[in-house]
Parts: sequence; structure tokens; C-alpha cells
Amino acid sequence: MPERDLQYLTELAAQLRVDSVRAAAAAGSGHPTSSMSAADLMAVLFSCHLRYDFEHPDNPGNDHLIFSKGHASPLLYSLYKAAKVIDDDELLSFRRRGSLLEGHPTPRLPWVDVATGSLGQGLPVGVGVAMAGRLERLPYRVWVLCGDSELAEGSIWEAAEHAGTEGLANLTVIVDVNRLGQRGPTRHGWDTGAYARRFGAFGWHTIEIDGHDPGQIDFALADAGNTRRRPTVILAKTRKGEGVVEVENREGAHGKALKDPDKAVDELGGPRSVRVDVQRPEGEAEPYHFDTSPAAVPEYQVGERAATRTAFGAALAALGAARGDVVALDGEVADSTKTQEFAEAFPERFFEMYIAEQQLVAAAVGLAVRGWIPYAATFAAFLTRAHDFIRMAGVSQASIRLVGSHAGVSIGEDGPSQMGLEDLAMMRSVYGSTVLYPCDANQAAALTVEMAEVSGVSYLRTTRGDTPVIYPPGERFPVGGSRVLRRSDEDRATIVAAGITVHEALAAADELKDAGVPVGVIDLYSVKPVDAAVLVEAATTTGNLITVEDHRLEGGLGDAVLDAVSELGPRVVKLAVTGLPGSATPEEQLADARIDRHAIAAAVKRLL
Amino acid sequence: MPERDLQYLTELAAQLRVDSVRAAAAAGSGHPTSSMSAADLMAVLFSCHLRYDFEHPDNPGNDHLIFSKGHASPLLYSLYKAAKVIDDDELLSFRRRGSLLEGHPTPRLPWVDVATGSLGQGLPVGVGVAMAGRLERLPYRVWVLCGDSELAEGSIWEAAEHAGTEGLANLTVIVDVNRLGQRGPTRHGWDTGAYARRFGAFGWHTIEIDGHDPGQIDFALADAGNTRRRPTVILAKTRKGEGVVEVENREGAHGKALKDPDKAVDELGGPRSVRVDVQRPEGEAEPYHFDTSPAAVPEYQVGERAATRTAFGAALAALGAARGDVVALDGEVADSTKTQEFAEAFPERFFEMYIAEQQLVAAAVGLAVRGWIPYAATFAAFLTRAHDFIRMAGVSQASIRLVGSHAGVSIGEDGPSQMGLEDLAMMRSVYGSTVLYPCDANQAAALTVEMAEVSGVSYLRTTRGDTPVIYPPGERFPVGGSRVLRRSDEDRATIVAAGITVHEALAAADELKDAGVPVGVIDLYSVKPVDAAVLVEAATTTGNLITVEDHRLEGGLGDAVLDAVSELGPRVVKLAVTGLPGSATPEEQLADARIDRHAIAAAVKRLL
Repeated sequence: MPERDLQYLTELAAQLRVDSVRAAAAAGSGHPTSSMSAADLMAVLFSCHLRYDFEHPDNPGNDHLIFSKGHASPLLYSLYKAAKVIDDDELLSFRRRGSLLEGHPTPRLPWVDVATGSLGQGLPVGVGVAMAGRLERLPYRVWVLCGDSELAEGSIWEAAEHAGTEGLANLTVIVDVNRLGQRGPTRHGWDTGAYARRFGAFGWHTIEIDGHDPGQIDFALADAGNTRRRPTVILAKTRKGEGVVEVENREGAHGKALKDPDKAVDELGGPRSVRVDVQRPEGEAEPYHFDTSPAAVPEYQVGERAATRTAFGAALAALGAARGDVVALDGEVADSTKTQEFAEAFPERFFEMYIAEQQLVAAAVGLAVRGWIPYAATFAAFLTRAHDFIRMAGVSQASIRLVGSHAGVSIGEDGPSQMGLEDLAMMRSVYGSTVLYPCDANQAAALTVEMAEVSGVSYLRTTRGDTPVIYPPGERFPVGGSRVLRRSDEDRATIVAAGITVHEALAAADELKDAGVPVGVIDLYSVKPVDAAVLVEAATTTGNLITVEDHRLEGGLGDAVLDAVSELGPRVVKLAVTGLPGSATPEEQLADARIDRHAIAAAVKRLL
Repeated sequence: MPERDLQYLTELAAQLRVDSVRAAAAAGSGHPTSSMSAADLMAVLFSCHLRYDFEHPDNPGNDHLIFSKGHASPLLYSLYKAAKVIDDDELLSFRRRGSLLEGHPTPRLPWVDVATGSLGQGLPVGVGVAMAGRLERLPYRVWVLCGDSELAEGSIWEAAEHAGTEGLANLTVIVDVNRLGQRGPTRHGWDTGAYARRFGAFGWHTIEIDGHDPGQIDFALADAGNTRRRPTVILAKTRKGEGVVEVENREGAHGKALKDPDKAVDELGGPRSVRVDVQRPEGEAEPYHFDTSPAAVPEYQVGERAATRTAFGAALAALGAARGDVVALDGEVADSTKTQEFAEAFPERFFEMYIAEQQLVAAAVGLAVRGWIPYAATFAAFLTRAHDFIRMAGVSQASIRLVGSHAGVSIGEDGPSQMGLEDLAMMRSVYGSTVLYPCDANQAAALTVEMAEVSGVSYLRTTRGDTPVIYPPGERFPVGGSRVLRRSDEDRATIVAAGITVHEALAAADELKDAGVPVGVIDLYSVKPVDAAVLVEAATTTGNLITVEDHRLEGGLGDAVLDAVSELGPRVVKLAVTGLPGSATPEEQLADARIDRHAIAAAVKRLL
């Protein structure tokens, strides 16, 4: 590397350190030392290897840079300043109310793909973006900056496995091995060989370098770019807090502003005004083209029996035929979730993620970053494995569609480990989420198609067993709606159900009617948002609501109903799963959980 | 291996296959083929290597056997039959209502340590049991049977990292590499070398064998037992459905009873009555001895300010001094969660699990299996990473104590990725869970000590910032209780709060009182179970409740209150976090989320 370039890179890195120190000092908090260790790495990346059109963040040819170590946000923002897309005043607004420069990066900034800050997530999402690049046949590269501490997360190794086996050569991970975690030394310290052995075993090209030597960094980044058929990990030995004696390579200096920032800035050679001209992508990248037509939604006849998971699968395949931007992912249970039909019809747009639910969801997020419409499916129970990824997808406001099959005790003999009983609580609590729970095949098919248009994290809950078809084909079920299935002016109570319990509620209503107790029944297929108007009307007219759900008592349908009517004060009885199920038939399970027709009828009688 | 032994092992394995087929046939479902592939492995283990006193499952010298591939339950139950602890009738009750032989094993059976069936969990829990063995200085061994599909789970590699780096030589993993997952071939098929490279890179001793050759199996198990300073993984190449042409090594034969079980039994040589005498542990193992005395709970004076996380840390250290069976684990944030004080005082009983929350919780479960009293801590937000493990701990009815710090928007500048805003919803929905949320330091300390006596999964939610001490030292706060902090006969409404919002509620009550609107205030520190009597009284007397929580609207404190009073029908207004926070100071965050004193007062006025 010519001396002049070396000097420039050294100056740029020093400025990045200075600005990281200054931003944290202005905020009174943040992670300057974790930024300083990676400053040389990012200086070389931005100056020599990144292809990014800052004026057009949606340029399809842009590289993608993900700070998996999101706490190094001062470094990221200092890079933006060097690239002249933010000014010094904005840099110093770091962590202030209203500033887009948050403690950890979020896509409120147009150049940030996904929110990071929960460690071990940026790499799995980067894998998803790299998968999209291959699908789109675009030459962009995905660069992920990881910390060494986060390599302890299992999700990193799910990502390593997927990227390594798939040979995602467009993915490069740069690990800032600064030896120090939050509370002390990492497990492997500066033993970059320990990490190289691990990544190597997973099929990666590995490069170990001095992360403060611009020449070595440049060589490694070029080597990564030239590597075929394998992703590359650059394991860069660095010093946390590099350049300032007060904090350099010292424990106890994580996640706080420097005590004497002015002295630190002096030590780093003072403020500079180095600018970095990030290269634009070469040529005009063509966005991926696809056809769109109305989906030929599968139809089921009223009176037949079909599982909502089967209808979902058929509708997803129909949607795939209608829209070239729909992709599907599964956690090695496509024959159960029924994404198999899509997989067989559109193998290029189907991704087998094997039993790795975190990577399953992260890949969906990565594909959504590129504008794809991902549907990711597994058992509802096993989506809990990816809770933190779903939570962060909410923070990213990523539009992903999750599908959980085998909901509730009604799966029967397999027992509690396989029963999705906490999924509604989990999904309802996610920021900006939509939660849908169909009771029949036509409704499931319609909602599957409807989800394609939903922004943010949406969730479809499906049932294992066959249920009667009660809605004719072709009806629409808008998000936020409900269906009043039984209603009369004589109703003394209203049963609110969704999914499998709708059928139990209808049977209970029939039984009660015969016993001279007319009751209404509402199918609350949209669990979030709920149809507050219909619930309020029921609460006002009958004054007595019974909610019934194949889910735990906490956080599900019943709580959603209570929330909608809480300011009116009707009497509400919640029926839900409270015990610990074992093995039994679906019918026995519903009875044992006291959410079947007889339990509902008994609850109504008790309430009245 | 002598011919006679070989014959015996072959006969035993054949019987295990026959019984697996029969059990699934009787149930009409289950996983016979996944059992048949591992029959030789388990036949040799039970006959020659396992040390287990079936009459005394609590014998401290017993080995531990965990079926991480829990769906191979027919094999496990067939082993129990061969060991004469269940009879043939019970075997054939498999998957029936009321049978202890559930679809996936649970500790309802006395010889089962933990519930499995959510893949990738048995090994991490086994790591915890192995950690306990080292702590107890007992010579028992931990044997874990894994499937090959589940090696895709990141949690497996968290476990591989921990066990490998810690050198847990008392742990042996046997992987049944039968090449076929649920919906088709696994990623690596029969390439046991791919798995060996990965485990080897993580520091394990690896052995690749033919999993149907008793001699090779015996040699490998002995080799594992003789290996020092490293855990061993035995990668056994097997055929799924081994021994029955209809299903052997065929796709589409996962998770279902055989079509013609009689023919299959014939093909396997018919029923047998082979018995296995499992060796008892040698000598009398001494249970771990420890001292117990009353804990010297730390005390804080009313009026001072202290963070509940700090009080938790001090109380945990005091508890550690009082009880030798208390252990603590942390996800590399001990300086934030404040387990650091315990770590410094009792390094032998503190486990640094690094940033691997699934292994963090799994290790706690494994330690609880051995009777330890584990406290596992990380940020509340990051406990979502371990949701599926927490869910399964509930199914196992494991007594573990989880502590989530940095709850809510009140953490301030760090932003949404670090805010625990979904943790109450998650923890409330766990079977048999207890959820505690203290508002001041003395309450936090008391509840920390109280948790030691709580069965099942319990959770303590702590706050980052200092809060005023409002309770004198020495008071008790029983699980299921609450504190009425303001009450008068003139109250027109009652504010229900917990944690940081208690202080906002008190300020709001003062403000309202000055404005001539007296209101009550309840500190609902026990979020599950809730003090229904006190809530019902408030609902009955004032008829107007305002709940306020630093948590999302769904599934938290407000829903717990609504649930408790739903049949009475008071008017309830829920205040909670509904938007997407950014960076801001704690005070700004509370105001922006509209859960601060002013928002509470405004809500009360609006309601009245």
C-alpha cells in the first residue's frame, strides 16, 4: 500500500476515533472504546472496498453493511459524518431525544438495514441479505461487523452453518477481536485461531490479521472479495479503546464515555476534517423483476373438513404463482407446516433453513430488507426459539410474515413440548405486530393472501387437525375485522373465540339455545388488532362475555378482548389452558383443558 | 467383544426395536423409526456403561441420561421395560390420556430429568448437569442422545462451546446420525466428518463409528469414559427404521406408526423377553453438603435511593453466604445485572455463561436437576433469546430463578434493543411461573431471598436506575401479595402499578389529591400470581382502576389486573408502552411513553 494511502487511512481512522469519543462525550454515555477498536477496519472498508450510493440508499447495486455489534454506533455515525451525510451537529446529537442517532442503530436512518444491539443478530440477518443477493443475481456484497463476545451466541453458528454450507461468497464477516467483553475478557481472548478453527469447520474461508494495520486489512478485504464459493471471515486482532492510554486494552472501560474526552482527543491528534468518498456501485444494477397477478385462492366447500395449515399451504403456493416476490422459508417441518407445496412449485424461492429457528426468522428479515415478501413457518411452539429475533424485527419495522402451525392442546398426543400455547402472548407483545388466527380453511387461505400486504411483523396461527369449513369461498377477512356468527336480541351472553374454539363455541351456543339460553358467537380471527367496535357492541348489549382460546390464560385472545372493552366494564369470563397437558387425543385435550363445548356451556351458565 | 455378549446385545436391540414398533402401533402415532436407528447405541449403553439405580432415582451417584431427541421416546420406554421398571401393559399405554409415557418424555416419570421434544435442548441441559457433577465432585457421567437434525440448532453450539472450553469430561454425547430429518435428508447426511470437524473445533474428543456395530459402540463408550479434560461426542452412522424394509433408510417414514406393525415385528425376529441389568453406581455417593443459615438481607433506609438491580445483587450475595446450595449464572453482564457481588464472593458457585442466553437458562435447569438453587441473570430483553428454554423449563417443572435487569423504557438512552418490554408477557405465559417486580431496594432484596423457596420457574424484574426506598428494611413481601400504598374511603379510583411506575403513581396520587381527586395506589409487586382479593376490593369500592406499567400493553401488569377483576366488570384504563421508543433520558422516555406521573393523573381525570 502506497505511503500516501496509508497516511490517509491512518488519519481517517484517527478521526473516527476522535468523533466516537466526542459523540459519546456529548451524550454522556455510549460505547467509544468498542468503536475505537474497529476504526481502522471500517476506515479501510469505507475507503477502498464498500460500494454504496449514499444519495440513493435504495440503489439495488448498493453493498450492505450491518453493524452486528450495534453498540459501536459512535463509529458508524462517525463514518456517516466522514461520508458527509450527517454533519458534526447531528453527530453530537447522539443519544438525545428525537435524534436519529440512537444508542444502537435502527432503520430510522436510511442507510441502516436493520436494528442491531441484541448481539448475534446482525450476522444471521446478513446471511438473509446475502441469500437475497444470490436470488436477485446482483453483485452487491454484504459486510457484517461482529464483536468477538457475540460469537458465543448460538445464532452466530446457525448463520455460520447456513452461509458455509450454501457457500455464500458474497458475505464477509469482519470480527473485531478486541479481547474484552462488557464485564471482562472474552472466552478466547486474542486467540483468533480458536475462532478460525470454528468458522473453518463450518466451511468458511478464514483470514487472521492485525486489525490496526491498514495494509493487512486491505489485503484481507480484497481476498474476501476474490474468494469464490465460500463466505469469508476476517478475524482482526484489535485493542479496545485503541489510541487512548486511559482506556486502551483495559477492563472496566466498556459502555461509558471517556472520563477526560478532551485529553483523549488530544492524544488522538486532535479533530480533523478527513472526508471519505465511498465508491458508488459500478453500472446500473437492475432491480429484480417479477410478475404480479391476482392470486387464485384455493377454495373449500362449506361443510367439508380441512386443516387451516393445509389451506395456508395451498394459498401460499397460489400466492407464489401470482407474485414473483413471495418467498418461503421453513424450519425443516415443511410437511407439517405445509409450506411444502410452495417448495415444490417454486424451489428457487423456497429456503430450507433446517432446525434453526433464529436463522429462519433472521433470513426472513434479511430478505425483507431487499423488498421480498417472506413467509417463514415452523411449529408455533418453536417460534419461541426466535423470540428475540422477532422482537428486534419489530424494532426494525421489518415486514415479515410468520406462520406457526400445531397451535394449542388440540394437536393431541404429541404432548406439551410440541404445543404452541404461548405464541399469541409472544406475538401480541411485539411492536407493530399483526396476529391472525383462522378457524376454517377459506379464512386461512384469505388471510394468507391478506398478509402479503401487511406491514411490520405479522403472524398466522394454524391448527393441526381438520376443522369444518364454515365460510363460503371468496369471502374477505380484513385485518382488524371479526365475524359475528350468532346473534339475536335475546342473547344473554356473547362467546368470543378464534381458531379451533370457534367450532366449540358454535356447538356450545347450539346446546345453550336448546336449553333456552340464547348466546352470541364472535369469530375474532384478528387477534391484533381486534375489532373493538364489535366487541364493544357485544359488551354493551349482552354485558357478559366469555372468551375461549386454545392458548394459555395469559396474553392471548382473552386478554385482547378484555383490553378492548376494559373501559366499559362488562363481566368477562376467560377460558384458556391453565394446566400442564400430557398426551391424549385432541378431543380429550380440549375437554381436559376445559375449553371444549361443554366447558363453554357450563361457563355461560355459571356466569348467568 | 465375546460372541455371547454380542448375541445378547443384538437380541436386546432387536427387542427395543420390536417394542418401539409395538408402542407406536398401540398409540397409532409416535416415532418408531427414530427409535430404531438408536436401538443398538442404547442397548450397549444400558448393558455395559450406564450406572443407574432405578429403585433410587435420587441416588446422587446415578448417571444421567437425557434423550435430547425426545421424539425417540418409544426407545426410552422400551429400555425402561427391558430394565423391568415398567411392564408391557404400561409400554402399550404410550401416548394415551393419563399415561406417564407421553409422546415426548417428561419428568412425570421419575427417571427422566427434564422434558425434551423441543430439539437442541437436551444437550445444553446436559451441560448443566455435568457442571453440577464437577461442583459436587461426584463421579457420575452425563449421557446425551442427540439426533443429527438438531445439530442445526445454535443452542447445540452454545453447549459445545461451553462444554469444550470448560473441558467437561463427564459429558458424552451420542449422535444418532440417521441421515433423515422430519421432511427429508439432513444437511450433512451421513457425513459424520462434517460434525466431527465442528465438534473438534470446539475442543471435543470426537469418535466416528458404525452405530449398528455393538463392538464399535462399546469401544467408543469406553473411550469416552477414559477421556480426560474433554467432553466426547460419538458420531454414530445409523439407518433410520433399521431392521424393517418398509421404512429402513426411507424418506416419508418420520413420526408415524408403521403401516404393518405385525409384519415389522416378524421381520425383527418377533417379540422377546430380554432383560437388561443396569449396573448400580459403585459405592455410596455422598450428596453434596452445604450449610444453611438465615440470610443477612441487605438493608436500605427509607428515603435513600438505590437501584433494585443493586439490591438484588447484594441480596443474592447474602443468600449465597447463608445457603451453600445457591448458585448464580450470568450472560456476561454481571456488572449490569449485579450478580458480580456473588461472583466475587463465591467464585466456585458462579458460572460465567458468556453471551449465550439459551445455554444460560439450560445450565440453570441442569443445576436444578441436581437440587441446586440457581439464579440466572441477564438483561430482561435478552431473556427472550431463551424463551423456548424457559417454556420447556415450565414443562419440566424445573425450579429455576431468572432475573432480568434493565426493564422498560426507563433504561433511557440505550434505546429499544436493550429495553425489556415484552418480558412480563413472556414470563406470565410460562406454565407454573411466578413473576415478581419490585419497586424499591428493600422489596427487591426480600423478594430475591423469597424466590429461593419458590417452586417452578420464577422471575424477578429489576430496574436500571435508582428509585426511592419506600419500605423500611425487614418487611416481608410474600409471593401473591401486594401493598396498598394509598387508600381512603373517598378514593374515586385506584392506580395499580409495579416497579418504577409505583413511584410515578405515588406522585400522580399526590398531584390528584391536591386537585381534590383522592385516589388509591396499589403496589402489585407480585404480577403472577396477583393479589386478587386486594384488586377485587379496589374494583368493588372505587370501581375505577388505572394500571400503569413500563412494559408493552399486551400481556403484562394491566392484563394481569384485568384478568383478576374481569368477572366484576370495573372500568379499567391501561397505561403501557405502545410506541417505538428511541434514545432519550429515563424521564423523557417515561413521559414519551405516557406512563409518567402526568400521564397517570391525566388518565385518571379522563376516566372520571
